[in-house]
Amino acid sequence: MLPDRDFFYRLADAAKAETLPRFRTGLSVVNKMAGGFDPVTEGDQAAEKAIRALITEHFPEHGVLGEEHENVGLDREHVWVIDPIDGTRSFISGLPVWGTLIGFQTNGRAAMGLMDQPFIGERYFADGTQTHYCGPDGERVISVRDCGELGNATLFTTSPHIFTGTDLERYRAVEERVQLFRYGCDCYAYVLLASGQIDLVVENSLKPYDVGALIPIIEQAGGIITTWDGGRPEKGGNIIAAGSKAVHEQALALLAGR
Amino acid sequence: MLPDRDFFYRLADAAKAETLPRFRTGLSVVNKMAGGFDPVTEGDQAAEKAIRALITEHFPEHGVLGEEHENVGLDREHVWVIDPIDGTRSFISGLPVWGTLIGFQTNGRAAMGLMDQPFIGERYFADGTQTHYCGPDGERVISVRDCGELGNATLFTTSPHIFTGTDLERYRAVEERVQLFRYGCDCYAYVLLASGQIDLVVENSLKPYDVGALIPIIEQAGGIITTWDGGRPEKGGNIIAAGSKAVHEQALALLAGR
Repeated sequence: MLPDRDFFYRLADAAKAETLPRFRTGLSVVNKMAGGFDPVTEGDQAAEKAIRALITEHFPEHGVLGEEHENVGLDREHVWVIDPIDGTRSFISGLPVWGTLIGFQTNGRAAMGLMDQPFIGERYFADGTQTHYCGPDGERVISVRDCGELGNATLFTTSPHIFTGTDLERYRAVEERVQLFRYGCDCYAYVLLASGQIDLVVENSLKPYDVGALIPIIEQAGGIITTWDGGRPEKGGNIIAAGSKAVHEQALALLAGR
Repeated sequence: MLPDRDFFYRLADAAKAETLPRFRTGLSVVNKMAGGFDPVTEGDQAAEKAIRALITEHFPEHGVLGEEHENVGLDREHVWVIDPIDGTRSFISGLPVWGTLIGFQTNGRAAMGLMDQPFIGERYFADGTQTHYCGPDGERVISVRDCGELGNATLFTTSPHIFTGTDLERYRAVEERVQLFRYGCDCYAYVLLASGQIDLVVENSLKPYDVGALIPIIEQAGGIITTWDGGRPEKGGNIIAAGSKAVHEQALALLAGR
């Protein structure tokens, strides 16, 4: 048996019960990396635990890859890919553009996915065929837009500071070509792309759980998401997502240094 | 007679009726500046018109300074300062961190102000004494937090690209000292400061209508907002806002090149 929307929504509700009460309060922040500033909240850990409990109860035969706890059965046919709070820096700054990411893969390929932003009350759900939006302004099936070419594109990335060396040069080459660029969104940029609000997202050094849920949300809305060398994005790394083939190809050429 | 909260809310409701239906739709975007990309939407213009109509009806003796239409009676005792959509780039990207800004000045000094984010359903209102929050998680009086010193601070700015020359060097000196910095928020950064979520906002080249509503929201939540040389912020320019005197002074010293 495969999960349905109701089950994804149960997972998101379980995560929300752990994240939302800890949003915009005094948080206990733990530094994950010595030297860097990569905060993890109690909410992050508690939400993943709540999601895993429901998966283990209902789909004990599935594997689970998560940010906060040990991975289980990654060689199984079906694997869940979880980031309980993507955008922890937004979370600890009170900015509601973080999200709970819940992806579902079959034979290593992204099949279904959900992004939940519980403070605003927005959900983006890829059911295997289509991407659905549910939020303050209603429910609808969403799709990407085609802006024609790179020069008309709106580009988002988390921060120019995520790039170094050749990656930075190549990212800047894309930034110089687009009409408008913005920083600071993490997963929220990808759902804006899936709903036809923006045209391009370029990031690097992503983990599998950073993109697992977002791949089907973008692909089932008609978009393209790959690594910078055009390969499948399930393993993360340097990632590009675009609303049209032309924009994807033009940006990919710059990112490949061609 | 002075305006009360109900009147501010009526103004915000009138603006919302013009902005929200145009958010996340295909917009007609007009380039204000030749060469640059400074979009103004129909919603921006229509919202300011709606706000002005109510002010003229109820307070014909007051002056009005706005972004989109001609200024009226700026030498009068009471002057409204309006930015119908602050954060037009967020608006056209579908990102709900733009806001409607409505400020009220008496004898040239910020006295009351409201920031409305109608998609999320958040309002921040300075009534002359206190700053009130109303949003998805309830209503409360808000106040800034004291993070101790600059090294503990979370800093927001719209984009590093807003700074050039000496301003950029001095901004970078602040960025290098803080614990965490984020880009991309416009007015939303100031309400996060007023509600004790972040500690510092540094920006430049602001217009009076960019800060008019935000000054009382910050000051009546216990924060400090000045120009980079420590003067009153009502006329805009290079602006710094902080949650505590120590952080304000430490950042101000760096911005002054001391």
